[in-house]
Order: sequence, then C-alpha cells, then structure tokens
Amino acid sequence: MSEVRTKAALAREAAATLNRLMTEQKNEALLAMADALLARQDEILAGNERDLARGRENGTSSSLLDRIKLTTARIEDIAQGVREIVELPDPVGVLLEAFDRPNGLRVEKISVPLGVVGMIYEARPNVTVDAASLCLKTGNAVVLRGGSAAIESNRTIVGILRDALATTAIPADALQMIEDPNRASVDEMLKLNGLLDVVIPRGGASLIRNVVENATVPVIETGAGICHTFLDASADPAMAEAISLNAKVQRPSVCNSMETLLVHESFAERHLAALAGRFRSANVELRGCARTRELVPWAKEATDEDYATEYNDYILNVKVVASLADALQHIRRFGTMHSECIVTESGENAQRFLQDVDAATVYHNASTRFTDGFEFGFGAEIGISTQKLHARGPMGLPALTSTKYVVTGSGQIRG
Amino acid sequence: MSEVRTKAALAREAAATLNRLMTEQKNEALLAMADALLARQDEILAGNERDLARGRENGTSSSLLDRIKLTTARIEDIAQGVREIVELPDPVGVLLEAFDRPNGLRVEKISVPLGVVGMIYEARPNVTVDAASLCLKTGNAVVLRGGSAAIESNRTIVGILRDALATTAIPADALQMIEDPNRASVDEMLKLNGLLDVVIPRGGASLIRNVVENATVPVIETGAGICHTFLDASADPAMAEAISLNAKVQRPSVCNSMETLLVHESFAERHLAALAGRFRSANVELRGCARTRELVPWAKEATDEDYATEYNDYILNVKVVASLADALQHIRRFGTMHSECIVTESGENAQRFLQDVDAATVYHNASTRFTDGFEFGFGAEIGISTQKLHARGPMGLPALTSTKYVVTGSGQIRG
Repeated sequence: MSEVRTKAALAREAAATLNRLMTEQKNEALLAMADALLARQDEILAGNERDLARGRENGTSSSLLDRIKLTTARIEDIAQGVREIVELPDPVGVLLEAFDRPNGLRVEKISVPLGVVGMIYEARPNVTVDAASLCLKTGNAVVLRGGSAAIESNRTIVGILRDALATTAIPADALQMIEDPNRASVDEMLKLNGLLDVVIPRGGASLIRNVVENATVPVIETGAGICHTFLDASADPAMAEAISLNAKVQRPSVCNSMETLLVHESFAERHLAALAGRFRSANVELRGCARTRELVPWAKEATDEDYATEYNDYILNVKVVASLADALQHIRRFGTMHSECIVTESGENAQRFLQDVDAATVYHNASTRFTDGFEFGFGAEIGISTQKLHARGPMGLPALTSTKYVVTGSGQIRG
Repeated sequence: MSEVRTKAALAREAAATLNRLMTEQKNEALLAMADALLARQDEILAGNERDLARGRENGTSSSLLDRIKLTTARIEDIAQGVREIVELPDPVGVLLEAFDRPNGLRVEKISVPLGVVGMIYEARPNVTVDAASLCLKTGNAVVLRGGSAAIESNRTIVGILRDALATTAIPADALQMIEDPNRASVDEMLKLNGLLDVVIPRGGASLIRNVVENATVPVIETGAGICHTFLDASADPAMAEAISLNAKVQRPSVCNSMETLLVHESFAERHLAALAGRFRSANVELRGCARTRELVPWAKEATDEDYATEYNDYILNVKVVASLADALQHIRRFGTMHSECIVTESGENAQRFLQDVDAATVYHNASTRFTDGFEFGFGAEIGISTQKLHARGPMGLPALTSTKYVVTGSGQIRG
C-alpha cells in the first residue's frame, strides 16, 4: 500500500478511538503536545535550519524563507496557540436538537467529529501544529500534507507531537503526516473517499484550485478573496478614507484585504484625488478606470484582468461607478464571495448592499480586514470558507464537526 | 453557449431576484404552480403518455414504466405536495446568531438561499415538481436534469410551472430544465462552478457515483444505504422479529431498508430458525454465513460481495456474530453510514452502539425505515445525506440554505 493510503487507514482506525474520548482527555493530550514543543525546541530549530539551508541553496525567495523560519519566540507562540485551543469549549457531543415523535420515538441530533480530516497546505510550519490541535480538539484524526519547503521542520514537529500523544488517551496514529513531496501524494489524498471525510486546502489560489478541481472527497474551499469596498455618494469622507486605507494596507498579503475600490461618481468628484494621494503615500500603486484617471492622472489603467486578480500586494484597482446598482453589478461579476463592504450614511443603501451582495461576510462602515475567526471571537480559525455548503466565512471549531441523529424507541415499526 | 450554460446563467440571474422575495411572495408563486398543475393536467397526462408509449416501444421494464406513469390521482398528490411545502416555515432570513464585539462591531449570522441548485435525478416526474417547489420555497433558483425516460412529462410540467411563475414575483427563469438527454449535459453541469452553488443527485448508486466522482461543484451526496440491524443477546424476541421484518419487507426498494441482519450467537441459537421462517413466509431470500446455514439449512451462502451490496429487494444477508464488537466491526467495514440499528435490552450495549457506529442515523429498538424527512416531522425531504458536510441524514428545507455574516460598524478599522 502507498504511504498515503497506509497512513490514512491508520488515521481512520484511530478516529474510532478519538470519537469516544472525553473533553478532558483531549485537552490533556493537547497540553502534552504544547509541553513537548517547548521541551524539544532545539530539535525543531535544527530541523528548521535544514529546511532554510536547503532553501538558500536552491535559491528560494527570502519572503518564503521568512515564512518557513522558526525562532524560539515563534515556537513559544505556537505552543501558546495550542494552550488557547485547550481553553475553548468542545463542540463535540452537543445536543443540538431533540424532539419526540407522536409514535413515541425520541430523536436527538448530536454533534460528532467529522472523522478523518485531510489538510493540504503550503510552507508555514505553524500550520502543522495549528491544524493538528484543531482537529484533535474536535475529535478528528488528521492527515497532514504540508509543502515540501518545510518538510524537515514538519517531520520533526510531527514526530515530537506523536511522541507526546503516545503517553495520552489520543492514539499517536490520529496524527499522520505525508512525507512524499511529490504532487502525486496530494492527488492520491484527493480521491481517498472512505478513508478521508473531508479535505481542507490552505494556501494560494493554485493550490486551492487543484484541490477543488480534482477532489472526489468533500472539500471545504477556503481563502481566495477579491474583496471590494464601495464608497457611496453619502459616505463620510474621513471614515471612507480610514476604512479603505485599512482594508488595503494594514496587511495586503491576506485574503480579506481589499483589491478593488469602487467609488460613487459624486463622492469621487469631491474626494478621490485626495484619497488617491493617501494611497500613494502608503506606496500603493493605483490602477483605475477612465474616469479615475481623469481625476487621478498618475493612476495606471485597470483592465478586466486586473479586476479579476487577487494581488495580495500594494496594488489597488479603482473604479468610479454611477450608482449602487453598478457597484453591485461589478461585485457580482468579479467578487469571490469573501468579504465586501459599503461605506455610506444611507441606511437604505446599506440595507440593499447587505442584502444583495452574495458573500460570506458583508460590511457596513467597517474594514473587510475583520473577516477572521479571532476578530469574530471564535478563539480559533480553521480557515475562511468561501463556499456555501457546511460553513461559510470564518470557521471556528464547530466547522470541524458533523452531526448524527440518535433515535431511541421501544419497538416502533413503520406502518 | 451550450444549453446547460445558457440556462444556468439565466438561473443565476434570477437567483438575485429570488433572494429579495418575502415568504408570502414565494408562497403565492408555489400556490400558482399547484393550481396550474391541476388546471392543465390533461397536457401533463398527454406528455406522460408519449413517454410511456416510447418506453413500451423501446422495451422499457414495466417497473420503470410504473415509476414514470402519472394519473389524475398522482397529479393531485403532486399538487398537494406543493401546497404542503407552502405551509412550512421559510428557513431563509432567520437570525441564527448575533453578537457584539468589544470594538463595537455588530455581527449577525443570517440564513440565506444557497443560490442556484442543480438537481440530477432519474425517472420519476414527481421529483421534478418536488425539487422545483423545495428550491423555490427556499429562495433558490434550480436547474433540473431528469432522466430521459420521462423527458416529455418533465418538459410539459416545467413548461406549465414556468407559465404559472410568469404571473408571480418569482421570475420564470428561476426554474430551468435541461432537455439534452445526453450524458454530456450532466457532465457539463458537474463542472459549472460559479453558476451552480451545489449539485444534488437523486437516484441509484451509479448516478450518485458519477456525480461524486466528476463534480467540481460542491455536492450533497444522498442515498446509498446498506443498512444493518443487530439483534443483541438480550434482544426481546418479539421486538427483534417485528423490527427486523419491518426493516426488510415494509418497502424493500428504498435506501433505509435493511440489507444485512447481524445476530448475536446466543440469540441466534434460540431464535434464528424461527425468525428465518418468518422471512421465508415473506418471500425473502436469505444468504447466510456458515453458522447461519447450520441453523437455517435452506439459506444460501453469503459472500463479501453480498455484504457489500444494496439489494433494494427481497434478499437479506444474515450473519451470526460472537459479540457486539464483531457487529460493530462488520458495520464499519460494510456500512454506508446511512442507518444502523441495535435491538437490545442492555442499556450499556445500546449506548456503545449508538456512540460507536458512524452513521447519519442510529437506532435503539426501532426500525431503520424511520430515516425519512416526513417521519422525522420535517414536512419535506430533499433527500437523505450520507456525507458528513453541510447536512447529514434526512434533509428538510434548512438543508437548502447557507449563511451570511452581516457586520455593521461605525468606522471600525483593524489595528
């Protein structure tokens, strides 16, 4: 049997045990994991250094190397993240609904683990610990397949975590890591119906597209975000500036940052030139429609391809629109159903925007950067779902659960 | 543009309107649909007769012809089904959660339509009306792709329903039917990401497998059921007989009927011979393990392939097991996570079974035949999900909804 199938089968076997554990047992195991990460951080740093050395040899970009790099402080943060997951309520075993039928049947709907979760992600080794902790806390076994650039870090971390689990109620086999760096191991995971219950991709657009296009296992799609902010005619100028700057530059590399600013014609006439200056001061390159370039002559020209691009960078499209309806039309065409914002003093327009825009999270007078499990107060984030099934928007621990109907009777049969 | 893409795009456009409708508007449209079906039943019967005539010519089986056949009484039942959906609460626009964040942001989680639902199903024309009503009631546009054996019936019905919608708040384009009878039209639907939000297959195992294996659009998997009943050592003999007979013969053709009876050794020694006689009287062919055939000499031999088969027929596998653990092991190997039952007087064993069996619905002392949206009191059933994401078990109207986070602020930005 292949590595992927062998490890997924071991995880499936372990999932049956996990399903029976009490919250305290799972929490003790997570604490053991956190302790082990701290106690054995020298090994982690050594493994990480092997990744970095190989990366430097291979000419890996400095930004990727920075994402891979671990330090004592980062390992402490990672261990602290595990402890914070311990503190969160256990979403498994919750009685969600209960009803008695006229024939005397008692029906209870109870939250249960998903079973075995496949995680496919890119470089950052902190995701390894994060995904393991979130899945185990929710009673799921997990099969991790991280990017090859961090393979030594991940192998070291998973070895340490499995050693820690061996002394706890969670079987070590509940945590599996695929070491085969070839793309074929990802493709094999995507077809493991019966062994994996769900695959969650975390990473860039091409990674996610590959998973969505090739998986036969159910997928929770995360991440791609072409987010818009619409400055309505009645927008408060100071608020419009604060929100749009924050949405673009507070952290441009993430999915909830803004890629296109839509501006109502009448607001644009009065305020766009000044606002553009603020973006310029923040080192943001502007690409605009024809009307934008009349008002902001130094802006480059925006194409449809630009409107369809998630830059994750200091680049912003600007489009002047004649009406709210035109803004809605643009969002419907180019949006990725992630996070969309209207800045307006008109309650009616806000209401229409919030109702009509089909996105995981819609905002009135607040930055799209708030689309985040921690900002929403979930205490954890598995990812941000941009699909409509199962979970949508920031996903906390309950997104890693399913349900089961438990029916108890006294001999009822169907007539 | 192809028929499939053209119609899906029209449905997508219509979905934006549907999303804004009030419950009363949707209900009025559904009532207009029901009225039109009754008023124009002669056309439906004529279309249906064309399907039947073609089927007879082509040598279609009488059981399939029976599933296609419509009568005045059946059309009245179908129209009545629509009226019953009108009576159900609207699951759209429900405030599911609301919380205020320390920074003053108000976050509301609201139920919304899925958007555009693709339905892929087989012969029965009643599914056409059922799927249309369920989707429109929940504010979804729908693209129907029924089996070619009923295409004249379906085309007539959809034409009548679209005519009826034209006089209501729901745009006729919210209801689309793919007429291309080639498999290629199904394959095209399965890849329509961006136009379809979900595909729901309803039909036999091969239809469902095709959808699961080839769809890139998210799928709600329904239907396949290899259901077990385990008669524990302490089972009440009369109850064991009533439940197991009901699970097999009350309606063998459906997914929640029993395919394999697991019998504890000590119960088998005392009662299996008599129980087998009851199955024989009900014309059920038994296929047994070696121990079963010692106790029931006339039973045929059961193979692993038999245990893995959904007969949907008057055939039953019987296996004697040494323990509850062996029964659980068998279910884990051969079950399809649909419906599983234990008959026992032992609370401890019941508890273990209900906890350990990984299935959408688990039963203690009741027939698996109750896994059904109407039996659960949902008043409707879109299907029975056998996957773990989004919905599991019998699906009522809420399974056709997603959620949206609506965040309102007063200029908040992220620090």
